Amino acid sequence: MSTTGTKIRELIVTPIAFRDPPLLNSGGVHEPLALRCVLQLRLEDGTVGLGESPGGAVRVERLAAAARAVVGLDVFDTTAVAAAIDAVLLPTVPSSHERGWTTSAVEVACLDAQGKLLGRPVSDLLGGRVRDRVPFAAYLFYKWGEHPALDGREAVGDDWGEALDPAGIVAQARLMQERYGFRSFKLKGGVFPPDEEIAAIRALAEAFPGQPLRLDPNTAWTVPTSRYVARELDGVLEYLEDPTATIAGMAEVAKDSPLPLATNMCVIAWEHLRPAVEQNAVQVLLTDHHYWGGLRRTRELAAVCEAFGITLSMHSNSHLGISLAAMTHVAAAIPNLDHSCDTHYPWNSADEIVRPGVLELRDGEVAVPTGPGLGVELDHDALDRLHRLYLESGMRGRDDSGYMRRVRPDYDPRLPRW
Amino acid sequence: MSTTGTKIRELIVTPIAFRDPPLLNSGGVHEPLALRCVLQLRLEDGTVGLGESPGGAVRVERLAAAARAVVGLDVFDTTAVAAAIDAVLLPTVPSSHERGWTTSAVEVACLDAQGKLLGRPVSDLLGGRVRDRVPFAAYLFYKWGEHPALDGREAVGDDWGEALDPAGIVAQARLMQERYGFRSFKLKGGVFPPDEEIAAIRALAEAFPGQPLRLDPNTAWTVPTSRYVARELDGVLEYLEDPTATIAGMAEVAKDSPLPLATNMCVIAWEHLRPAVEQNAVQVLLTDHHYWGGLRRTRELAAVCEAFGITLSMHSNSHLGISLAAMTHVAAAIPNLDHSCDTHYPWNSADEIVRPGVLELRDGEVAVPTGPGLGVELDHDALDRLHRLYLESGMRGRDDSGYMRRVRPDYDPRLPRW
Repeated sequence: MSTTGTKIRELIVTPIAFRDPPLLNSGGVHEPLALRCVLQLRLEDGTVGLGESPGGAVRVERLAAAARAVVGLDVFDTTAVAAAIDAVLLPTVPSSHERGWTTSAVEVACLDAQGKLLGRPVSDLLGGRVRDRVPFAAYLFYKWGEHPALDGREAVGDDWGEALDPAGIVAQARLMQERYGFRSFKLKGGVFPPDEEIAAIRALAEAFPGQPLRLDPNTAWTVPTSRYVARELDGVLEYLEDPTATIAGMAEVAKDSPLPLATNMCVIAWEHLRPAVEQNAVQVLLTDHHYWGGLRRTRELAAVCEAFGITLSMHSNSHLGISLAAMTHVAAAIPNLDHSCDTHYPWNSADEIVRPGVLELRDGEVAVPTGPGLGVELDHDALDRLHRLYLESGMRGRDDSGYMRRVRPDYDPRLPRW
Repeated sequence: MSTTGTKIRELIVTPIAFRDPPLLNSGGVHEPLALRCVLQLRLEDGTVGLGESPGGAVRVERLAAAARAVVGLDVFDTTAVAAAIDAVLLPTVPSSHERGWTTSAVEVACLDAQGKLLGRPVSDLLGGRVRDRVPFAAYLFYKWGEHPALDGREAVGDDWGEALDPAGIVAQARLMQERYGFRSFKLKGGVFPPDEEIAAIRALAEAFPGQPLRLDPNTAWTVPTSRYVARELDGVLEYLEDPTATIAGMAEVAKDSPLPLATNMCVIAWEHLRPAVEQNAVQVLLTDHHYWGGLRRTRELAAVCEAFGITLSMHSNSHLGISLAAMTHVAAAIPNLDHSCDTHYPWNSADEIVRPGVLELRDGEVAVPTGPGLGVELDHDALDRLHRLYLESGMRGRDDSGYMRRVRPDYDPRLPRW
């Protein structure tokens, strides 16, 4: 193959919105629409690489700046592409974690394009897959039965129903298992007082004996409350995720926690690794290629975790199929993926933007796509529809707390809550 | 591209010997011949990937075991290839560092084959090159003027001459600079009492003002001696390499060393990283793709170093062009290559096994090959000649101390010596 044509001609960034159920968390509740961006990286020879990133006006703006920075670079020079984006964002985005969201999405698009050029799946560009199917966990949420009537809009229900107590969570878990075959479960907590969430986890343990369980209150708790929950759920949870905020807080909890502590909130950039290791703050890292720098950087992060005895899991935000494909490829290539991955996919897959037939959650797993690149094809009609939905929505960003306050004006989002 | 034909058909391992000058170190003196292995990894479609590793009977035997383990695997599944080799060696080779020598050489051959299949240079498989030329340091050695007459063989001189004092070292450095344009210098120490080697470094500093200097006594010193030298050479050396043995010893020296300490001796496997970081034992890591697991693992190691504030340099053993090409590709792809790389190449390049025209040390740098794979072609006549030399030599391994004792029967190789 000649290198002619492998230069980046343009990066098209399409903001989209898709339906999201009223999922509760420590910061409020998911709005009726979630925002995302779809990236199409077009090379001089016409090859297109796909990427997907969180949406909202700020991220769209940064991706637009990235698009200007990468034109003319070679798609195989992913390190240089990342450096060019990083340099253009640096003056206005001081956080390396925040810059990472942008560089990561473009790296995935580059690798998809590379794979298509080379006729190889992205996993082959990462050392090959060490597993043919990647296990995911059912992502359980406390949720309302419907989005309330607001702004003249009628209430919008879904086929998951309400889940506001242990019985509701177990019912949701059963539905998740029935539909997708999951064999491990994660509950998004931080919504109800800790004893209620402990009761929900115990109900899950009784309903699904021997199947790994996790609880993630998104830093809703103080250090003493975190310690209390860790002791109560010793022997029940696989790990306890982000019970409290900051590396120092997690380190305090870890000192006498019988449970491993996991995070995707206090260790979210390369410069956090050293203090986290020095303070032994976390025993499990939920990686996320969307902010750690992309798929190759995620493999590098996995190597750090291996060297320092930190086990590896994977974080998720509301997402669609391009992200799911990327998550699956990198998870397939990492030998030390020690836990099943998180995914919001069941909550959002009705509005899929990739053509059906490749990505399917069965037995709680996704088979690694074997076609060139990420192995998924964009459904341009779906993309157009979701882009119009974005434009019509007028939404500029995610605001779980604001939405909650419109429904419950006395809602106080400050943490820790308990 | 279809995946047909990308399976490994055979791995041919050819032991070779090539001429080596009488270079002195803390363990003795280089023998007249150095041993190495050349790997030819042939795929089902006929594509051949090249690799190079240290030689000697034990390594040849392990590579032969690896050759049996990898047949039938896909050349893109480098993680699985490494795992298969690791598994077959594990029962007899407990050290992960030792197993790494074998897995690494095969990974390089896989990446060379991948690059040839894809029509892309190996650096593109590692994220692209962030520099077009890789800087190397002149590797200075105390040396005898000739290999002594032994076993009925006549004395064998070379065009470098003798270097046994500061003036000799400075003369060697000038010759190195004249021939290859080096702009940084490393002296292999541990040969003479520390004050003599301090004097040699000071003479180099005077002769080459402002050009980075390093000293590597290969653990010849005690902790107090290491501290003494570090204080004496504060402001003169770029870093002090392996003054004393073990992570604990280096940590003791590091406590009050004004100089950064470097190693390629006490941190040589992934499991050494955690204790080294916890004890702040080293500030510079000399990576070596020949034992860290290959080129991709070297990029991962670079990420660890970046995360933990360790700067990165590169180690060398006596080697030929396949290794030089691999070192150059990976060094080109690593953003945080903070120091010029080591190379023995000037001492051994007269017996090159790759065809001329690609690898050239000019201005102390090697231009990154841009052809497919490693970008170098095997010279089969040279390979045959050096293989015959290996067979005729009867050598089974490297023995610097034994050779020294044949010349100086009272030589005591035990360390620390000072």
